[in-house]
Amino acid sequence: MNIHIIGLGLIGGSLAKAILKYSPTHSVSGFDTDEDVCALAAADGVEIKEKAEADITFICLTPNKTIEYIKTCDSKGIIADVCGVKSVIAEAADETALDFVPCHPMAGRPVGGYANADADLWQKASFIITPTDKTKAISVEVIEKLALSIGFSDIAKTVPADHDRIIAYTSQLAHIVSNCYLKSPTLSDVEGYTGGSFQDMTRVGDFDPSLWSELFRCNKDNLLTELSRLIDNLREYSNKISEE
Amino acid sequence: MNIHIIGLGLIGGSLAKAILKYSPTHSVSGFDTDEDVCALAAADGVEIKEKAEADITFICLTPNKTIEYIKTCDSKGIIADVCGVKSVIAEAADETALDFVPCHPMAGRPVGGYANADADLWQKASFIITPTDKTKAISVEVIEKLALSIGFSDIAKTVPADHDRIIAYTSQLAHIVSNCYLKSPTLSDVEGYTGGSFQDMTRVGDFDPSLWSELFRCNKDNLLTELSRLIDNLREYSNKISEE
Repeated sequence: MNIHIIGLGLIGGSLAKAILKYSPTHSVSGFDTDEDVCALAAADGVEIKEKAEADITFICLTPNKTIEYIKTCDSKGIIADVCGVKSVIAEAADETALDFVPCHPMAGRPVGGYANADADLWQKASFIITPTDKTKAISVEVIEKLALSIGFSDIAKTVPADHDRIIAYTSQLAHIVSNCYLKSPTLSDVEGYTGGSFQDMTRVGDFDPSLWSELFRCNKDNLLTELSRLIDNLREYSNKISEE
Repeated sequence: MNIHIIGLGLIGGSLAKAILKYSPTHSVSGFDTDEDVCALAAADGVEIKEKAEADITFICLTPNKTIEYIKTCDSKGIIADVCGVKSVIAEAADETALDFVPCHPMAGRPVGGYANADADLWQKASFIITPTDKTKAISVEVIEKLALSIGFSDIAKTVPADHDRIIAYTSQLAHIVSNCYLKSPTLSDVEGYTGGSFQDMTRVGDFDPSLWSELFRCNKDNLLTELSRLIDNLREYSNKISEE
């Protein structure tokens, strides 16, 4: 197959590298607005072109840019996105005639960009697909097979709304907590006084604010529910400790 | 040296195993109220005896039991403890004539007990010593050398109050957050929808409540300060997301 990747950041770049490494019978083309990134990707074997009539096009952009792209896209092949929120994306896609598969590859790194992209990022990771009434089963199957061939260990399928409800808890809330954790003034004194629990708690806290604030905004209600549950539980702890 | 270990749980057991593995010129004796644990430790090379006139005695008990032990102990050798809080321990020790070194080896596992003890638990971990005005420099040096010989990568030294202030943030708060995180009803739906951020956030959340509630109680004020900071930061996030 010809696979085209729009946006060669951490996710797009890691998909490109994983396909080239683990499924080399496919050809990979792609594009990024950053010329240096295009040069790096070309050296890795990605054919650089802005538009391609591909069998699969992965849109690897932020939610807002993904929606913009969907609105103007006229590819006849399968189109998939990789956003961490799915309802807003699936709604935008359902308004078009595209053969669209809403996806969310569940892996990442605290550092973004093509330079940090890794063919092995997907090893043992879960690949989520959130079909709507308009999604073609045959296209889901093509994406599924590709995902399993490049390192993902399992495929999870659910409707977009359910995905967003669960992901608010498993991913977005974790990023917010980790970020808030790093805001204590005690942070400046921790050297020599940390073990695994601190490292784990703070690993994802230093995220790209522009990308994540978009994700938070697109999943506002679910996230507010989880935040309020967590705050209530923390407050209960605080009360119990205070009363001994 | 003869090293005696009171309490052969995860920490005492891991110290015993690490000394036997990495500093085998020392002899290790120890005791646990659980006979099965004593049998396991004996098979590993620990001489089982309740009392020993050792060069170093490590008290590897919970804070309350450590304080009880300190009050009745009459050993002439160096006594060290391993509790995650230091002010209450150092105060109790300072009221005795013991040659006492308050310590906190900064590693652990979510599962306790001798069966989970590991000679390599201390690799790359920090060993904290919190001397008071009464602590002998020569005894600190003996403990320091031993710690570095069994796998710890660095020694951090500070006064007990400062330790407790920092540890409230780097360890105790992390355990509380992780535990609260696991209390969302969404937990039952996460299979297939988690990545590294969720695993990290929840790794230490399922802790031994009796041990940790003692630690929380012994470090109440510092912990309440950090909890309130975190709750404020989470509430600020919640407000910002709510206002978009």
